[in-house]
Amino acid sequence: MPLRDTPCARLVRIAHPAGRRPVYARCDGEHFVTLEGDVAELHQAIRDGRPLSEDGARIRKDRAQLLAPACPTKVVCVGLNYRAHAEEMGKTVPQEPLIFLKPSTAVIGPDEAIELPPASEEVHHEGELAMIVGERLKGVSAEEAMRGIFGFTCATDVTARDIQRRESRYTRAKGFDTFAPLGPAVALTGHFDPAAHTLTCRVDGEVRQHTRLNDFIFELPEVVAFISSVMTLLPGDVILTGTPAGVGPITHGQSVEVSIDGIGTLHNPVRRPG
Amino acid sequence: MPLRDTPCARLVRIAHPAGRRPVYARCDGEHFVTLEGDVAELHQAIRDGRPLSEDGARIRKDRAQLLAPACPTKVVCVGLNYRAHAEEMGKTVPQEPLIFLKPSTAVIGPDEAIELPPASEEVHHEGELAMIVGERLKGVSAEEAMRGIFGFTCATDVTARDIQRRESRYTRAKGFDTFAPLGPAVALTGHFDPAAHTLTCRVDGEVRQHTRLNDFIFELPEVVAFISSVMTLLPGDVILTGTPAGVGPITHGQSVEVSIDGIGTLHNPVRRPG
Repeated sequence: MPLRDTPCARLVRIAHPAGRRPVYARCDGEHFVTLEGDVAELHQAIRDGRPLSEDGARIRKDRAQLLAPACPTKVVCVGLNYRAHAEEMGKTVPQEPLIFLKPSTAVIGPDEAIELPPASEEVHHEGELAMIVGERLKGVSAEEAMRGIFGFTCATDVTARDIQRRESRYTRAKGFDTFAPLGPAVALTGHFDPAAHTLTCRVDGEVRQHTRLNDFIFELPEVVAFISSVMTLLPGDVILTGTPAGVGPITHGQSVEVSIDGIGTLHNPVRRPG
Repeated sequence: MPLRDTPCARLVRIAHPAGRRPVYARCDGEHFVTLEGDVAELHQAIRDGRPLSEDGARIRKDRAQLLAPACPTKVVCVGLNYRAHAEEMGKTVPQEPLIFLKPSTAVIGPDEAIELPPASEEVHHEGELAMIVGERLKGVSAEEAMRGIFGFTCATDVTARDIQRRESRYTRAKGFDTFAPLGPAVALTGHFDPAAHTLTCRVDGEVRQHTRLNDFIFELPEVVAFISSVMTLLPGDVILTGTPAGVGPITHGQSVEVSIDGIGTLHNPVRRPG
């Protein structure tokens, strides 16, 4: 059990086999080994260099239900954070991060369906790198910001582009239930340097977005510090770091995949209910 | 104890005297009598016509700490919902409700300070009627919407007007910590008809906003139904229904009061930290 003594590189969050609250788990070959503690407790243990305590359950990976790797009180998003995407949207590069919120009710996990709402005829994928907050952050500096981040995961900032275009606000266009898929795993902060990795978003297997994660207008520590100067970030809160160029429509029956090497692939089918 | 057998008209939420989680309480003369159950349980009991169970504590009103009367996962706000305010902001009356979110970290209770952030030189009061959601609401009709509302309270939609003017989004301008004061009490839905009441917002005792609560562009049931068509509303979630004309600046040392007859007066001092 080498991972008892050193922090694991990646964790997942799964439905507890005994029907208790969802738990974090680490990988051990073909199994997940469940861990004690919520995101704040795990984050603190990792910061302190303590081993993560197991809670005793081993579940075969093919029998586990993967959940969104965080249960946020809020999802804070950065509007335009790649130059090429700002250009494709016909927007000037902002002087400060432009932030908006998705409600926690928009969050879904791996393999859950993105539901196209009746109010929109044009729903777009926006593949993104997400950060999961590990501790209460208020007014932190860019220098200390990343120490408060538990880890990284994949996200899709699903957007009703027609509604976004029509309204001056993003809340409705980006706030529908199922519009914030997250997963499949958390790459822990000390084990993952975003700048060394790439993000790819595929629709039905076709590459729509592809970028190295080192092309941000606002660097990640700056984003965390900026948000924490406005609103207190709480353990489990999620920050979506903006989408690269290549956004486009998704329709009923299609499948969206956001892959980041070192994290995994977040897959979500798309369906129009009714 | 006549209020054991009929639902009370108004409840407060207070710090529990024994240091347990905050509790709802009813008034009994000079005392508060604490109740069992969270907002969802109390709402269900009232809908079923069951008496509200007391949990045994009686606290003198002058020794109780009043809290925000809900602990929302999200605060959903309607942008322009009074014609006169739309006119003073130079905006056309919208065809559909324009919604935005405040994070739960913006919520404060009665007498807590509104903190002016360093990033803004022009912070405004916006006195509003707020609704507190009593049960999970998703895709409800306007006809059934109000049955899911636990009750009504006073709110201030504190707004950094300079930031709002500069950005196309409201999240930052309205999302700072302390920018969502709520309270002092919940007037329960079956005992409070907003259209029969008035809202007054005073700064240092001077009337800045005054309106009857029957002048909405979008009626309250329509607002609830619209929001629930976008995002699932959860028990305790709060809906701010828009502000009437008369918004204006608040500065360090001033005091904001939002009064609705039948609910009470929400008082918050204003301070600029540091």
